[in-house]
Amino acid sequence: MKKTLLALALSGACAGAAHAQSAVQIYGTIDAGVIKRSGDAVSIGKRSANTLGFKGTEDLGNGLKALFHVEVRYESDTGSNEIGSNGTQRPLFQGQSRVGLQGDFGMLRIGRGLTPFHETIGAFEPFHAIPTPGGFYTDLAVAGYSSQALDPVGYSNNRWSNAIWYNSPLVNGFQLNTAIATKENNGGPAIIGRGTAAAPQYPLGAEGSANPFSISATYNNGPAAFMAGYERNAIESKVWSIGASVFATPELKLMATYARQDQDNTRLFNAETRSWVLGANYTMGPGKFLAGYGEKDTDGLDKVKQLSVGYEYSLSKRTYLYLDASRKKGMVPTATNPGTINQYDIGLNHSF
Amino acid sequence: MKKTLLALALSGACAGAAHAQSAVQIYGTIDAGVIKRSGDAVSIGKRSANTLGFKGTEDLGNGLKALFHVEVRYESDTGSNEIGSNGTQRPLFQGQSRVGLQGDFGMLRIGRGLTPFHETIGAFEPFHAIPTPGGFYTDLAVAGYSSQALDPVGYSNNRWSNAIWYNSPLVNGFQLNTAIATKENNGGPAIIGRGTAAAPQYPLGAEGSANPFSISATYNNGPAAFMAGYERNAIESKVWSIGASVFATPELKLMATYARQDQDNTRLFNAETRSWVLGANYTMGPGKFLAGYGEKDTDGLDKVKQLSVGYEYSLSKRTYLYLDASRKKGMVPTATNPGTINQYDIGLNHSF
Amino acid sequence: MKKTLLALALSGACAGAAHAQSAVQIYGTIDAGVIKRSGDAVSIGKRSANTLGFKGTEDLGNGLKALFHVEVRYESDTGSNEIGSNGTQRPLFQGQSRVGLQGDFGMLRIGRGLTPFHETIGAFEPFHAIPTPGGFYTDLAVAGYSSQALDPVGYSNNRWSNAIWYNSPLVNGFQLNTAIATKENNGGPAIIGRGTAAAPQYPLGAEGSANPFSISATYNNGPAAFMAGYERNAIESKVWSIGASVFATPELKLMATYARQDQDNTRLFNAETRSWVLGANYTMGPGKFLAGYGEKDTDGLDKVKQLSVGYEYSLSKRTYLYLDASRKKGMVPTATNPGTINQYDIGLNHSF
Repeated sequence: MKKTLLALALSGACAGAAHAQSAVQIYGTIDAGVIKRSGDAVSIGKRSANTLGFKGTEDLGNGLKALFHVEVRYESDTGSNEIGSNGTQRPLFQGQSRVGLQGDFGMLRIGRGLTPFHETIGAFEPFHAIPTPGGFYTDLAVAGYSSQALDPVGYSNNRWSNAIWYNSPLVNGFQLNTAIATKENNGGPAIIGRGTAAAPQYPLGAEGSANPFSISATYNNGPAAFMAGYERNAIESKVWSIGASVFATPELKLMATYARQDQDNTRLFNAETRSWVLGANYTMGPGKFLAGYGEKDTDGLDKVKQLSVGYEYSLSKRTYLYLDASRKKGMVPTATNPGTINQYDIGLNHSF
Repeated sequence: MKKTLLALALSGACAGAAHAQSAVQIYGTIDAGVIKRSGDAVSIGKRSANTLGFKGTEDLGNGLKALFHVEVRYESDTGSNEIGSNGTQRPLFQGQSRVGLQGDFGMLRIGRGLTPFHETIGAFEPFHAIPTPGGFYTDLAVAGYSSQALDPVGYSNNRWSNAIWYNSPLVNGFQLNTAIATKENNGGPAIIGRGTAAAPQYPLGAEGSANPFSISATYNNGPAAFMAGYERNAIESKVWSIGASVFATPELKLMATYARQDQDNTRLFNAETRSWVLGANYTMGPGKFLAGYGEKDTDGLDKVKQLSVGYEYSLSKRTYLYLDASRKKGMVPTATNPGTINQYDIGLNHSF
Repeated sequence: MKKTLLALALSGACAGAAHAQSAVQIYGTIDAGVIKRSGDAVSIGKRSANTLGFKGTEDLGNGLKALFHVEVRYESDTGSNEIGSNGTQRPLFQGQSRVGLQGDFGMLRIGRGLTPFHETIGAFEPFHAIPTPGGFYTDLAVAGYSSQALDPVGYSNNRWSNAIWYNSPLVNGFQLNTAIATKENNGGPAIIGRGTAAAPQYPLGAEGSANPFSISATYNNGPAAFMAGYERNAIESKVWSIGASVFATPELKLMATYARQDQDNTRLFNAETRSWVLGANYTMGPGKFLAGYGEKDTDGLDKVKQLSVGYEYSLSKRTYLYLDASRKKGMVPTATNPGTINQYDIGLNHSF
């Protein structure tokens, strides 16, 4: 069947058909293992997040590039979209969906993705930024801070929808990463805050009272790296952090973070939180030992303390086996959580 | 591990494994920008639909080909599946999911996709068939007509599930495009129509009273193109349209459409709607100006009028920046819509 | 923009970026046709399941490989995720999501996928293991058995979430396939069983009373193949089966299965079910005839009987047209099902 220009014009549903030069890359990870957690039966689950992403870069000439990422997050044990701790199904491209331009000026992107604060501090956490209680990322390293306050409960705490990112070029080891989001409400519940149940501080569907913004700076000098970050979310909770890592020897990496969260805007009590995490990674042939200890101290609450140790055995650059043990105590006790959790896991992680 | 024929036969879950000659293509678009709309705070969103598609063509010999498309639609600002205006999450392959054969006889496909009427008229709309109020496609160009009447509210109005498409070959510049759908109810609500709330004309779960069908013809002659289309949906709303476009100069494309909808079958009042859109695209180097004006006139309602102007700056064949301003007035006023909308947007569109 | 190691370390959201050697394969099927079923209007739907999968294999050296599959299941007629018979939307990677290692020892995988019992018996069913009433797989071949008892109603009956698979290497034509799952509840409803509505045998959210396990053995000897399988689910329903197939001539394949289900643990009545299916496939040039007859006999219920005949015409190794007629009777009559179903379908199946 001969095709004319009109026929091509009509194929609106086939956009991109003519772009043979397009080379979309598929990438991702799949991680699954056996987990034993205090109070639960043996389960199967993930240690780190599972992704299936599609990305591409187009050279626009003069050092300018267009780039995009759309990134599915999923549960390897059930095959579903990523599920929040309360059972909420997260969006299809929970990982990120961003398009942007990159050039001498740096990189500018728009859409959904990790906030600069969260992306940066994750690199200074000793367990690949995996969630608590295996790792320290989602609770201790960030002082319990949540970037998203007006999203549905169960959505991830370290991402923004409706935002613009700017990453500076790297100059003498320095890099600046920033993002700003709109005040849009993304379907979250009302937040009582300093109001009452009848008159919440942020009623159902309310916009943010401020534009969320996030900023981080990194400095890289030979074996040492440093970071500082600051973020404010849509309900004006604030967090700042500093972190450092150093290769004491080529095999031994040491790292530390300190973070402080201020929830004064919505809390009369328990508004200030301080946390710190110390970590080490030690590489020995194909094996790597991981260890970390951290504390989180919220005004008026018991101190939370966590110790984690792990071992990873690389079968290749893309595939490793892992084994972890962690103990976390001091959380507010609930029906299913007595205040102390021991967790053990063993599994397989594969990148593609 | 040696594999036998039985082992291969057992790998039902791995269908396609042996088809190394298969070359699935990934294609799509990602569009995101900053939008300011009357009555709303600044938001981030899309100008045109975002797609991630997978397609392939197999040569069957003798000029016959098998082909398929499955096409995700998503929101770049939140990473979710495409969301309808009322918050409804649309199906995973909202864009299309079709399989078919193509040969000297034309092209025959089955599944879900744009109706021929909607696909054709979209090519005569000056803003890439983007939704109102930025473009004219979803409201004015089609006289407010909806192809799907028995789908959930919020599903797209220009697609059919459960349909068969036939596109003729192109003969002397002429092409005929047709589709027919089953009467299946796809989970939409009851339609009161000429009935009552207690006895709706189409009760919950009712089948269509007729097989939806859609037909369009196009004629392409040098710089000029013409179209005519007719469609009837499952509740017997009818629409017809004519359109034309011409390259007055190599840089200047002019276009016009006229459409008329008849909803007599389900409406006592406001049953007849007429609309027209005039548009122009002017290319100047990497820049393109877009302009359009249109009116929609429904019996017994205020006339709807819309003016849109835009500018696109191409960074490559696949990537452009855009800037639009539009004004639409005459809609029935609601709490969030005072009857007149001004919209401004600026953003980036990338095809892959 | 120059990238440093730190910048790379920060790109946690881009895992896999550096793995240019990764070659993810896209595979799948799309099947759509026209169906006429007793009591229903003509509809469009699928004959066999539709998949879109992503898979990869990594050579780890010494005969060891890492492998993964994530596999979308979808409806070709509506573009949605696969939908259960009751309208339930199944998980994104309903087909499977598994990661594992393969070597001289066999293959070990973890995640979600078909149970060994279900995967093996499917290869001895004459209609590509398609669902009833077109094929015999989901009801007669397995004696109505469901692998998943604690999943949401409408999820597929032949898969496990939260499981570990081991497939032995093939030794002298023998292969052993096993899987074991955790007792996790996956969000299914309460099961009254031998309890009462007030005190169900398995209350809402209850864990399994036993670890589900599944085992199958296959033996392949020239033109003949044999299987035996056994499985127990989380509520201790048990099933076993035997099956055989033989190429009587190079064109004619004959096959038979027998299965027996025991639901004593949750049923006072109708606890024992026996079923058998006889089938034949006859290849003649590009055409293939399929035929099968089967019965299912549950204690205290009417016998279910099904006869199906079909014809497939291959346009290539990846694409065929099909035409089926089937009759099934003896089901418990319901409002939409009078106890006997005749089904006719004609369509197109394409693998990629």
